[in-house]
Amino acid sequence: MPISPNVTAAVLVIGDEILSGRTQDTNLNAIARFVATYGVDLAEARVVGDEAADIVAALNALRARYTYVFTTGGIGPTHDDITADCVAKAFGLTLYEHPDILAEMTARSDYELTPARRRMARVPEGASLIKNPIKGPPGFQIGNVFVLAGVPSVMRGMLEDIGHRLEGGAVVTAQTLRVDGFAEGVLAEPLGALAKANPDLSLGSYPFFGPDGYGANLVVRGRDPVRVDQVLGELEVSLRAAGATQLARV
Amino acid sequence: MPISPNVTAAVLVIGDEILSGRTQDTNLNAIARFVATYGVDLAEARVVGDEAADIVAALNALRARYTYVFTTGGIGPTHDDITADCVAKAFGLTLYEHPDILAEMTARSDYELTPARRRMARVPEGASLIKNPIKGPPGFQIGNVFVLAGVPSVMRGMLEDIGHRLEGGAVVTAQTLRVDGFAEGVLAEPLGALAKANPDLSLGSYPFFGPDGYGANLVVRGRDPVRVDQVLGELEVSLRAAGATQLARV
Repeated sequence: MPISPNVTAAVLVIGDEILSGRTQDTNLNAIARFVATYGVDLAEARVVGDEAADIVAALNALRARYTYVFTTGGIGPTHDDITADCVAKAFGLTLYEHPDILAEMTARSDYELTPARRRMARVPEGASLIKNPIKGPPGFQIGNVFVLAGVPSVMRGMLEDIGHRLEGGAVVTAQTLRVDGFAEGVLAEPLGALAKANPDLSLGSYPFFGPDGYGANLVVRGRDPVRVDQVLGELEVSLRAAGATQLARV
Repeated sequence: MPISPNVTAAVLVIGDEILSGRTQDTNLNAIARFVATYGVDLAEARVVGDEAADIVAALNALRARYTYVFTTGGIGPTHDDITADCVAKAFGLTLYEHPDILAEMTARSDYELTPARRRMARVPEGASLIKNPIKGPPGFQIGNVFVLAGVPSVMRGMLEDIGHRLEGGAVVTAQTLRVDGFAEGVLAEPLGALAKANPDLSLGSYPFFGPDGYGANLVVRGRDPVRVDQVLGELEVSLRAAGATQLARV
């Protein structure tokens, strides 16, 4: 139930460690929150392993469909880091050693420029670099694709150099009404009626199961904050009329 | 870098709340760990919003390619819960009210059988039910697709009724060597050489950035635990020879 999406994004998480269950991904959530502040709707995410054909296919599907694509992972120096190669292949470009990255690597005194590390200096022709404010080589942007590190602190650092590149949309406002001790099966009707009556907004119900049984966070989202506030108020009134007592704006 | 995958799975996470950044998904990780214990390789995951066309397209792509597909989310009673409808559409089947679910709903004394709740009794023709040991209606299996709740505790409870349905493969053993104070740029060469020399195994490097700078968890995975142990031992020897001192099997 999107809100007339204008500027969209997708995330492509690259890494066996997410699919094996070894690592809990947090980059998707961080990027989702980041793009939301620019009015960009995250519309899809995919997780693929360290397999070239899978990465290329997913990237080409996503970059054709969405305004922006963010990839995370696979840009290190080891044999399983193949993201740069795959991005170049997807775009039909060749990789070259970027002089700025090589210069920075050469300048470091704590650092031996191993062949493995030189791999990290490679970006597709025409790419612009994305600063790494933590440590290590930068990410890069090619076309509508931002290629970021997989280590969460480094990935988030790189986002700081992306905001100014985004052509954002109208920011989406969200307000949440938490309902305890009142199941979705009862609130579904008034909620659905309001959703139908307000097609310019997105109304969602996100249930939880806690010590008091089922409850739900009801979220009204839209690009006009006045409308969001108004409809959340109407929702509150209709839920009280339906018998809900434990309501809280959260 | 998969280990000759035999039995594969994909996860389809359904829900605006994941893409808006409101909710951090944990179901993907729980399913990844669960299927791994049955020797099933999780090969891909996708996250889509509450949009029928997107759900149907993603489900059809995944169920054609992988042995099993697990969906999470969108099976509640509210207007944005459209998973059952989409699964039926993907399979070209119609939904019907399952008598066992209706009977259970009718028997509950704490429960008014609202029209919204009746929606949760609908499953595709030919589906088998997946027990919900927590509270609320069951999930269902149709063909190679398992349709599960989105609430994490309920989703995990439903997994208990799935293991016996899986035709598993040889379970993958993973062993991890943690290396501190030793960057991937240096360990890449010995690691890559071992990966090349042992194509029956998967060797991965998962870097982290902590107070002592970069380190990495090096993971050897394979279906023969003796080989995994042997090659992890070789990796340890070659890293010590390369100068690493802080090594720990974790």
